[in-house]
Amino acid sequence: MRFDAPLTLQSGASLGGYQLAYETYGTLNAACDNAVLVCHALNASHHVAGVYEGQPKSEGWWNNMIGPGKSVDTNRFFVIGVNNLGSCFGSTGPKDVNPATGSAWGADFPVVTVEDWVAAQARLLDALGIGQLAAVMGGSLGGMQALSWTLQFPERVRHAVVIASAPNLTAENIAFNEVARRAIVTDPDFHGGHYGRHGVLPRRGLRIARMIGHITYLSDDVMNAKFGRALREAVASHASGYKFSTQDIEFQIESYLRHQGDKFSDYFDANTYLLITRALDYFDPARAFGGDLTAALARTRARFLLASFSTDWRFSPARSREIVKALLDNRREVSYAEIDAPHGHDAFLLDDARYMGLIRSYFESKVAQP
Amino acid sequence: MRFDAPLTLQSGASLGGYQLAYETYGTLNAACDNAVLVCHALNASHHVAGVYEGQPKSEGWWNNMIGPGKSVDTNRFFVIGVNNLGSCFGSTGPKDVNPATGSAWGADFPVVTVEDWVAAQARLLDALGIGQLAAVMGGSLGGMQALSWTLQFPERVRHAVVIASAPNLTAENIAFNEVARRAIVTDPDFHGGHYGRHGVLPRRGLRIARMIGHITYLSDDVMNAKFGRALREAVASHASGYKFSTQDIEFQIESYLRHQGDKFSDYFDANTYLLITRALDYFDPARAFGGDLTAALARTRARFLLASFSTDWRFSPARSREIVKALLDNRREVSYAEIDAPHGHDAFLLDDARYMGLIRSYFESKVAQP
Repeated sequence: MRFDAPLTLQSGASLGGYQLAYETYGTLNAACDNAVLVCHALNASHHVAGVYEGQPKSEGWWNNMIGPGKSVDTNRFFVIGVNNLGSCFGSTGPKDVNPATGSAWGADFPVVTVEDWVAAQARLLDALGIGQLAAVMGGSLGGMQALSWTLQFPERVRHAVVIASAPNLTAENIAFNEVARRAIVTDPDFHGGHYGRHGVLPRRGLRIARMIGHITYLSDDVMNAKFGRALREAVASHASGYKFSTQDIEFQIESYLRHQGDKFSDYFDANTYLLITRALDYFDPARAFGGDLTAALARTRARFLLASFSTDWRFSPARSREIVKALLDNRREVSYAEIDAPHGHDAFLLDDARYMGLIRSYFESKVAQP
Repeated sequence: MRFDAPLTLQSGASLGGYQLAYETYGTLNAACDNAVLVCHALNASHHVAGVYEGQPKSEGWWNNMIGPGKSVDTNRFFVIGVNNLGSCFGSTGPKDVNPATGSAWGADFPVVTVEDWVAAQARLLDALGIGQLAAVMGGSLGGMQALSWTLQFPERVRHAVVIASAPNLTAENIAFNEVARRAIVTDPDFHGGHYGRHGVLPRRGLRIARMIGHITYLSDDVMNAKFGRALREAVASHASGYKFSTQDIEFQIESYLRHQGDKFSDYFDANTYLLITRALDYFDPARAFGGDLTAALARTRARFLLASFSTDWRFSPARSREIVKALLDNRREVSYAEIDAPHGHDAFLLDDARYMGLIRSYFESKVAQP
């Protein structure tokens, strides 16, 4: 959907005209009160559920959760997936043409925040004729957007489902983002963010960024269970099985990480990576309240479901509990589940019976009952 | 000290002639039974204690622990610090000339392992006239060398002090090493490890490697306490204090990490970084015993002190406990302390009264009593 009215961003910059890529599933009912907005995390898109015709491998990133008869049942709910501004999957972003110059934005694309994304999403809902959401939901960075919805548009959200998220990033979270950004920015093919003009891509940097990210998405336990110290291939010539090389792949975990990095560098835009990690860094609703999250969340009017995963060390359960506490301080209605899962932060994307059951139960018993 | 006899390495390669840089503190007694060998970790050297004349900032890396009247009292013990093969601080390594070619080894320096380092250290002790060590000690990778001493030369070690260490790396540990190595190897200035021939240094890769390493040395808690979400400088022009930039430094933690990376890339050799991280990856005494650490440690004859730090997530207390259990299975004499410290893995280098007291007490009550 194309928007012609300029959007004033949190930084003060203005984005004059933009488009948002979105998908919908199910049918908006006559009362327009069954809409569920799904916000995506770092490297996902508006393609939340379903499979594109003739592309059996094109499953939406939350296809295990959302669809007919699923936890978020599209026979009952009208689900909207929207790609965020600054992304590289269809919404206006650094790869698009800057109307002021006639060439690609590249590094000149304005810095966008969680609040800016929510403001843009609200305009999409206006255009779709949706006044109030039955629910807004998301995991990780998507959960931050869901939380921000309840602050920016308290009356437009009945329920917020915030999964594996946090009220802000810790210093360690920012540190990992910063290393990833430095890997990209110091790649000689980055060219100050205008690699497009030079016909190259900062693939080296993107690979490193993705490898770092991937380590933080998984738990130590699941890495040990999946890869442990297994070698990629036993070399019969040496009893130890080692090749004794610093550059060749020796352990399976190395092969896995390199593969993840290669894949990512094929499809993800480096400038988008910088923008999205910065949006993560900046999000901090308590900031304007001197760090007092309880005061920050006093504006909320929604009811909440929070969920976290025991082995998530990127956004640990303790971070979700901070949000729960601040909401309870404000006497908000909050359900909270801490799910014992081995998969680390990635668990929010995976099929787990207790997790899927929790979401189903909340949508059936709470969201579906006005 | 120069060694002319070739050293056969674990890989099967042979290093024909090499030198080891070492320092000693205190005096070897007439019985030659008061020697303590200190093994270093990733980026340290033989300069363990003391200060070089006229260089007040040249403190040895364990100067808080080792010296006259300190926990390891050099009035009583003869302490030896030795730089490992493949390093860049004086012992033969990639920056030295390969006699076979007449130019620097660079990436052709043979892969060295913890076992190779211990074998080279043993030759140094032979030359110094030391048959049996009162103690061998080290933290992190240095602890792995101490453990390996008790396996390679069981009769030459009375006590082994193994601090903040592990019986092998986990998949996550290897993963972090691998990302760091990829950052170095894919730096266009790496030139396959022969950057010396091109008159350049792969500084970008080294910076990223060090930033990643540094995150894993600290705990989330100490990072939050030290930096939290503090900004580098408040910008009055925007109420949030943010600059809204993806490339400028915004948070103090970013400034700190970049500084650490810059400093490291000034003095550390990239090929050495590859070699040392690989030595970490490879160390796994249980490997030849089908993963049975108890069986692997049956050869030990020493008495042991193990110590770990509560917030160390790189080499967690659980990893030290694995070693303790395997030693107890073999009815070895083991003391073990889990120290509640906020500093993460770095704690093994820091001044902490309980930690320093523990080491002092062990050396006074056990090591000093034959």
